[in-house]
Amino acid sequence: MREELKALEPYMVRSNRINAQRMDLNENPYGCSKKVMKELRRFKGYELYPEYDSLLEALAEEFSLKKENFILTCGGDDAIRIIIDGCVDRGNNVVLPSPTYSMLPVFLKAKGARISEIPYKKDLSFPSDEVFDSIDRNTALIALVNPGNPTGGIIEEKGLQRIIEKGPYVLLDETYWHFVGKSYASWVKKHDNLFIVQSFSKAYGLAGLRIGFVASDEKNIEELRKIALPYSVSSLSARAAEIALADKDFARMVVERTQVEKKYLKRALRHFCEVKDTHTNFLLAYFGEDSKDVFKALEQRGILVRDMSSVLPGYLRISVGKRKDNRALISALKEIK
Amino acid sequence: MREELKALEPYMVRSNRINAQRMDLNENPYGCSKKVMKELRRFKGYELYPEYDSLLEALAEEFSLKKENFILTCGGDDAIRIIIDGCVDRGNNVVLPSPTYSMLPVFLKAKGARISEIPYKKDLSFPSDEVFDSIDRNTALIALVNPGNPTGGIIEEKGLQRIIEKGPYVLLDETYWHFVGKSYASWVKKHDNLFIVQSFSKAYGLAGLRIGFVASDEKNIEELRKIALPYSVSSLSARAAEIALADKDFARMVVERTQVEKKYLKRALRHFCEVKDTHTNFLLAYFGEDSKDVFKALEQRGILVRDMSSVLPGYLRISVGKRKDNRALISALKEIK
Repeated sequence: MREELKALEPYMVRSNRINAQRMDLNENPYGCSKKVMKELRRFKGYELYPEYDSLLEALAEEFSLKKENFILTCGGDDAIRIIIDGCVDRGNNVVLPSPTYSMLPVFLKAKGARISEIPYKKDLSFPSDEVFDSIDRNTALIALVNPGNPTGGIIEEKGLQRIIEKGPYVLLDETYWHFVGKSYASWVKKHDNLFIVQSFSKAYGLAGLRIGFVASDEKNIEELRKIALPYSVSSLSARAAEIALADKDFARMVVERTQVEKKYLKRALRHFCEVKDTHTNFLLAYFGEDSKDVFKALEQRGILVRDMSSVLPGYLRISVGKRKDNRALISALKEIK
Repeated sequence: MREELKALEPYMVRSNRINAQRMDLNENPYGCSKKVMKELRRFKGYELYPEYDSLLEALAEEFSLKKENFILTCGGDDAIRIIIDGCVDRGNNVVLPSPTYSMLPVFLKAKGARISEIPYKKDLSFPSDEVFDSIDRNTALIALVNPGNPTGGIIEEKGLQRIIEKGPYVLLDETYWHFVGKSYASWVKKHDNLFIVQSFSKAYGLAGLRIGFVASDEKNIEELRKIALPYSVSSLSARAAEIALADKDFARMVVERTQVEKKYLKRALRHFCEVKDTHTNFLLAYFGEDSKDVFKALEQRGILVRDMSSVLPGYLRISVGKRKDNRALISALKEIK
């Protein structure tokens, strides 16, 4: 098989998470909209190939764009995959602020890209000037995550604009945008080199249903259609996404409660470790040399968090849970430390 | 964007099929197992990332293989995509008997493969000797469909074995295998260059849910995991597939009724056109120069069939429906011809 694959490691999927306290994958502890659940129970026609017009029109309305500005994907991962497949060729240079969302380097390496890693600053803020300066005639793509994952911070608007204006293609992963309340999707009208990636896995609580999308200039979307799966999203999932988009109250409630709980968790965690402020539904906790021990001790107590040591030594990424989850985490840490 | 994309045409997806008589995409006119529908109404946990162990184990049992022999995909298309992405590099030679399933050339061209098209014989039987002879040291992959689509015939077993034994990697798309009752999945134990593609879209009636898989040697599956989406199938869809696999009666009923209806439809169609015998849930009808007119006239009457003229001039591909669908088609043809 292809040469690039030999050096790659697959993304490891953990199983048997169902009975654990899950603070590792930034899922939605509030579930999803009840309206979605009700609708899916009534859904018929599993035997028919999906149709997406209705969801595409809802997305167009949501972001004041046209339906031709969107393509649906099997979660945000598939969105990232088709953008990279479309824009990047073997040996092309890709500017990648690091650490970043784990699937970005996986897909880039599989494609044989040359990755120019630009480290986040020491305080984990976005290295705007360094990214800008690193763009040159050999750059094929700049891959950004805003708000950042795992770093949690945001890219300052003027810096982002400057990068997009200088850059060739820019991928902007907005998986966590609801938690900061600002999406740059409307910018695809003025920047024809911008690809926005979004997902229904976080604020909408539909991670199991695998729905994401790319928003971009119409011509870019037309090109992506040539390499995308024609039927990339389940018909049930497409219907769920449409209902989820319409239920503004649910997503708003999720964001509000997440802010309240994050504040609570942050304050409580500070008795045990340094905590980085974030604009997402997770916190970054610095346990230094103890981080792996804390990770394991939590795991033994049935609490899953994300060990970031391979990219951010000493850090654990902790999804903000409901109050009872957050309390259980703090109790466990009291026992451990 | 990439050079290869310029010359490509996207796969055209038709919308508003819901109120038409759908004989164009070989969907299952009997719907899906009632047990699947019942289970999906009870399903909870849309907010959680999917886990696939349970379905993988069910597949392993079904085909007397190990769960490490399988990877789940977003329909059969995604299975084809990852095999091509793993095995084929720009400029590599791929042996492709033609006409074939429409997504095969799409993904191969997107990858920049050189396609060695081997035409099916005049009677639409599989060109076994010609495929065998065309395999040489430059061949990276041989992409086969059995039973064939749109040709509908089967590959004779000894010829298939000979090709696999001579060949480098062999992709064998078995989307329609239930209708002939024979899968070669167990051959992955003795041929480590064989990739079997299957789908839940046909006999199981789950086209809307986007579930497919690759069966292959463990080491190949390990490589495919590096380029596949880690969460390629919705959690609901994975559960549906597991229930569908267990409900042997439903799939058996579908195959039996399809045989009966195919016999009826074939006999009735012969008053209007030549009909090719098939081992699938569709028929190939030869209307010669009239084919485009017949296609349009049927469409005007709300009956969708598949115009194959771009690859098989004069032919329409017609999915076998329920008795009332088949009767309605015949009535429409009486009006038209």
